[in-house]
Amino acid sequence: MSVLDSLAGTATAGTLYGIGVGPGDARYLTLRAAGLVQAVDVVAYFAKIGSPGNARRVVAPLLVAGRAEVRLEYPVTDEVPADSLDYQQKIGAFYRETATALAALLRQGKSVGLLAEGDPFFYGSFMHMWRRLSADFPVEVVPGVTGMSGCWTRANLPITWGNDALAVLPGTLGENELVERLRLADAAVIMKVGRNLAKVRRAVETAGLLSRAVYVERGTMADERILPLAECGTTGAYFAMVLIPGEGRRL
Amino acid sequence: MSVLDSLAGTATAGTLYGIGVGPGDARYLTLRAAGLVQAVDVVAYFAKIGSPGNARRVVAPLLVAGRAEVRLEYPVTDEVPADSLDYQQKIGAFYRETATALAALLRQGKSVGLLAEGDPFFYGSFMHMWRRLSADFPVEVVPGVTGMSGCWTRANLPITWGNDALAVLPGTLGENELVERLRLADAAVIMKVGRNLAKVRRAVETAGLLSRAVYVERGTMADERILPLAECGTTGAYFAMVLIPGEGRRL
Ligand SMILES: C[S@@+](CC[C@H](N)C(=O)[O-])C[C@H]1O[C@@H](n2cnc3c(N)ncnc32)[C@H](O)[C@@H]1O
Ligand SMILES: C[S@@+](CC[C@H](N)C(=O)[O-])C[C@H]1O[C@@H](n2cnc3c(N)ncnc32)[C@H](O)[C@@H]1O
Repeated sequence: MSVLDSLAGTATAGTLYGIGVGPGDARYLTLRAAGLVQAVDVVAYFAKIGSPGNARRVVAPLLVAGRAEVRLEYPVTDEVPADSLDYQQKIGAFYRETATALAALLRQGKSVGLLAEGDPFFYGSFMHMWRRLSADFPVEVVPGVTGMSGCWTRANLPITWGNDALAVLPGTLGENELVERLRLADAAVIMKVGRNLAKVRRAVETAGLLSRAVYVERGTMADERILPLAECGTTGAYFAMVLIPGEGRRL
Repeated sequence: MSVLDSLAGTATAGTLYGIGVGPGDARYLTLRAAGLVQAVDVVAYFAKIGSPGNARRVVAPLLVAGRAEVRLEYPVTDEVPADSLDYQQKIGAFYRETATALAALLRQGKSVGLLAEGDPFFYGSFMHMWRRLSADFPVEVVPGVTGMSGCWTRANLPITWGNDALAVLPGTLGENELVERLRLADAAVIMKVGRNLAKVRRAVETAGLLSRAVYVERGTMADERILPLAECGTTGAYFAMVLIPGEGRRL
């Protein structure tokens, strides 16, 4: 057995694993994540309606033939505003049912690996399962390389230097909230830009940061796109973010 | 060859690799990072005076016997204030000399892997080498799991939910600057707490966040310590941070 395989370890019966799969390139899974993808009885993953599931695609090179898989399909698409009561009720019911289904597998003694894009505890849907299941079942969370680390690496932009303060902002915030927070930051990452891109761009411009801002779509994936925010259109992809690198102390 | 080994890949002559080694546990190296630690001609790492080098210790289980190593010892310790002219001159000269030494190895055709704790482009000293060498030599940066991901995982604290804004703040900021930024954040990570711990604690308390704040020292390492910030003394370790988890939308 190689050193990598022995560090990667094994899975324990009846345990829920929250497996951070990193930004998209399979080489950026951790040894522990890669070991668990190979070792768990059941690989579970969330997927959008009509999509093969991004996290599933990331780990595809590691999946053992014949491994049981559970596809957890969201009942709503990006098109429904996440702040609407309708969305929250549908998604709340979906997470409740999903937790019940995973609990049944765990009670049967299966080891279940739930894939999470990036890092599971950083805006991850895994958290909604963890919240419901961690009191009743053993859980191991495997930290992952975040989408933002993958994006600033590929954009060749060291994000924070010296005493830089970094703001990580969801693009769903209001325009004024974005501006106010950008003004107090030395460096920034704006996630969930998607349909918020036009607003995000206005906020970045108002904060005087447009010349430094870079848009990264599907960072580290095969169809990655990187361009100045100033050259972007008005809608972005779901897997996209805006990076504003810091200018702190160079030594 | 196992799937993990084949994904990990090889190293190219004359290339500088910035290898993110993650928060401390060797299992949290990425496949690519682990592959490069095994494959490069020279493993280089920064170390404090009198210390074996933290990044070197993290990758120890992966080091191939007889591999060439270059230890880059900082000329100054934590005791010298990083804002002093003396510190900046000494460290500036050290980084210049180090870049010259690495350039010589690269010109000889060696592949050089410079280890970086966490993620190389996130407050990393690797950035000071990248800045000096990337125009002249091929460079590959391997993103890593950040120290903060390791810490919030081990503290069992999902850090951001829904539309939470996260502030990442260096503990070196002034007390008022910290308070002002904490007030505009839903979740926060305060890095470099060390000798700034008393000030950081006052700022967190003034911002009304003390009851939610957790101190994590050497997260994911063998001698990890996790405790409420309210129960901490006045100085922290160098590898320590304060986490304030968000309270955004639970679904
Ligand atoms: C629900 S959050 C999940 C974040 C994830 N847990 C992480 O650690 O990066 C989804 C957002 O992450 C960002 N994202 C994640 N991976 C990305 C990638 N490879 N490229 C661009 N954006 C990415 C996008 O902004 C997207 O809207
Ligand atoms: C110069 S910064 C390097 C950050 C690193 N590049 C990263 O991605 O986490 C050093 C600071 O990182 C934090 N840090 C890194 N790893 C840590 C760990 N395992 N436990 C606690 N703090 C850590 C501490 O706050 C420390 O003062």
